[in-house]
Amino acid sequence: MDPRCSIDKFVSLNVGSKTGELVMQSRNAGGNIRFAIRDILLIDRQFGLDEVVVVHHTDCGSLTFTNKGLRDAVKERIDSAHWDEVDKIDWGANTDMAASVKGDLEWLRATPLIRDELKLNARGFLFDIQTGEAEEIKLA
Amino acid sequence: MDPRCSIDKFVSLNVGSKTGELVMQSRNAGGNIRFAIRDILLIDRQFGLDEVVVVHHTDCGSLTFTNKGLRDAVKERIDSAHWDEVDKIDWGANTDMAASVKGDLEWLRATPLIRDELKLNARGFLFDIQTGEAEEIKLA
Repeated sequence: MDPRCSIDKFVSLNVGSKTGELVMQSRNAGGNIRFAIRDILLIDRQFGLDEVVVVHHTDCGSLTFTNKGLRDAVKERIDSAHWDEVDKIDWGANTDMAASVKGDLEWLRATPLIRDELKLNARGFLFDIQTGEAEEIKLA
Repeated sequence: MDPRCSIDKFVSLNVGSKTGELVMQSRNAGGNIRFAIRDILLIDRQFGLDEVVVVHHTDCGSLTFTNKGLRDAVKERIDSAHWDEVDKIDWGANTDMAASVKGDLEWLRATPLIRDELKLNARGFLFDIQTGEAEEIKLA
């Protein structure tokens, strides 16, 4: 979600403007692929996806909390009648952004919801906020 | 998610680079605020949010399906053992993107999860892919 993480620094957002190809950006706090499953299935079915690319970035807000700590802090602001809705939220805390890219690639490989071609072609990157460089993260 | 919808055409993504203010972008297919509730609560708690802005765009992919039609089409590609996971997905089909901005503002006003200041200050826009102009959509 962070505007300092600009994927247009390493991919062209209109890769094939002549052919109508576009880079769709699903962005959420932490960049977790779990929260983009609807987007991936929807876009692939309606328009066809060629490739899934997972990009997380350094200095990410998801490093600043634990799941339990954030859940309890959010509850403090909300009437207890609605705490069950807060309990359902997967907050996606991270402790290492390179590891979280790997975890997302592993999650993608394991999910039965996404077709094999997209799993096998998927790539992961860690975008460095300081340098503007993206490092590819590969599974062993 | 569509790169043709560039919010940097009408807001500065680093509104206060001297003060550290940033415009965070939560992007999902259809731009529906329901799918951004985690992002809003998380960012507001960890960093403080000043304002929520809902932006949908013309020629949106969410106009190209019905919820039932997309659900059934996605199921065709997936082993029936996992159809229950597909049934849980809210596909967020739209039929009118100005109406969907209004619907999101109404949803925001009604949710007990977000604090009143953010609800009262929230603004909605429909971004026109053809002209690059954003029209503000207001509740009555």
